[in-house]
Amino acid sequence: MTLAAAPLAQLDAFVIDLNRASAAAILPLFRADHGLEDKGAGKNLPRDSHAAFDPVTEADRGAEAAIRKLIAERYPEHGVIGEEYGEDRPDAEFVWVLDPIDGTRAFISGLPLWTTLIGLRHQGRPVLGSIGQPYTGEIFIGSAAGSRLLSRGSEQAIRVRECPRLTDAIIATTDPDACFDGAERGAWLQVRAAAKLARLGCDAYAYAMVALGKMDMVIEAGLKAWDVEAAIPLIEGAGGIVTDWRGEPIGQDGGQMVISGDRRCLDEALVALRRSAK
Amino acid sequence: MTLAAAPLAQLDAFVIDLNRASAAAILPLFRADHGLEDKGAGKNLPRDSHAAFDPVTEADRGAEAAIRKLIAERYPEHGVIGEEYGEDRPDAEFVWVLDPIDGTRAFISGLPLWTTLIGLRHQGRPVLGSIGQPYTGEIFIGSAAGSRLLSRGSEQAIRVRECPRLTDAIIATTDPDACFDGAERGAWLQVRAAAKLARLGCDAYAYAMVALGKMDMVIEAGLKAWDVEAAIPLIEGAGGIVTDWRGEPIGQDGGQMVISGDRRCLDEALVALRRSAK
Repeated sequence: MTLAAAPLAQLDAFVIDLNRASAAAILPLFRADHGLEDKGAGKNLPRDSHAAFDPVTEADRGAEAAIRKLIAERYPEHGVIGEEYGEDRPDAEFVWVLDPIDGTRAFISGLPLWTTLIGLRHQGRPVLGSIGQPYTGEIFIGSAAGSRLLSRGSEQAIRVRECPRLTDAIIATTDPDACFDGAERGAWLQVRAAAKLARLGCDAYAYAMVALGKMDMVIEAGLKAWDVEAAIPLIEGAGGIVTDWRGEPIGQDGGQMVISGDRRCLDEALVALRRSAK
Repeated sequence: MTLAAAPLAQLDAFVIDLNRASAAAILPLFRADHGLEDKGAGKNLPRDSHAAFDPVTEADRGAEAAIRKLIAERYPEHGVIGEEYGEDRPDAEFVWVLDPIDGTRAFISGLPLWTTLIGLRHQGRPVLGSIGQPYTGEIFIGSAAGSRLLSRGSEQAIRVRECPRLTDAIIATTDPDACFDGAERGAWLQVRAAAKLARLGCDAYAYAMVALGKMDMVIEAGLKAWDVEAAIPLIEGAGGIVTDWRGEPIGQDGGQMVISGDRRCLDEALVALRRSAK
């Protein structure tokens, strides 16, 4: 059953509230003093230890707790899946899928490219998704009703751009060395060699740039549910396409993903990506 | 002769005015419709052709013209060196060195990591520099009087952080494939392998993150005068160090540059960088 317009509009407004609550938890910790983290490092704790004060983990947990509290108050029957606090009612009719800080490496480096991902599943299908960047004051949000950018009090409809040929495309991936296996890296390099320009390290902010019509394609692998769930309604609502590396609809669990603004450009890239599809 | 405090304070305030004028010229073109650019692409113009409407070149020129106009009105005896409009009085006592849009690839990709670089030389020495990001509303500015971040009406002193060991460092470079020759790339990879985390594609925004104490080191090569000139006063004013790949003071013409927040970390990196120093 398709979700009717009226409840969708209510849920859309609620997503803005969730983004605000999340931002309030995260922003005070963005670029906050990392002094205690340094103290941990001095004690020769493992590099990725969370025993020392870790602003990004604190912020992630605080934001997810704030979002879960609002959902529990407003929609107690809804399910929630989040990176920090696991799954509640994952088989409910409506399920929220959360990643309060996507792009933790950008976050700890002070760069305003980390984002808050909020997706909503209805009867197993992603129907509503947002990518928020609280420091720049942006919320990209999309559904079957269309996609838009809310920014500092203004709101605009957004739309992917045409890009018939890969040779004219601006493409992105997060980290070819860390996120791709050997075959995946080979496929990425082949697509990159054909494209006009590639950007690295943008995480889900790059998805938003495709929806905005400023980038043409994002290629990722090893994704989690929350990366995919927020992306699909935003990109599709803006007229774009989200598939796996075979060109098939992407599953709820993530894995390999291609986001493209133009199907012709996607088809060109799939020639290389299909060979490394899982 | 050292620049006295009173004229420096006046020039500092003027740099803020220059950033505002530049931002007013650039912001309307950031993420503006690239439709005419696409039309150019359809005509099979060369990929980097400026014959078609090119928002980044338009913005760059408009901003540099606006900055030059203010300088000519207020300080007609000062010299100006800019990327778009060449050199006027490059041997004057005071010379402004300008790059209105550093990070053109970020700009055309919609990413808020491009910056406006404004540096001021006094008797050949860089004495005042700013890195501005109009979309996020940030101006990082520094001189012998110290460095600070102006952001949306608030102002804070900024300072590099301690990072005694390269193994704990967050490092950055813009594009190892495009900006480094073979030997330089080897040196970068060696430093990168030792560091905790590397970020790519940040251009001069990464310099600002070192001044802010969020990154520890930036390694670049093939730089121009304007990249160096704005960076030195900002980094040194925040307690950091700017050298060439030998660890020597960097010349006015740019070339190879290392920016570091902590001398110990710099010394570790120089072991690798010196071998590829020019």
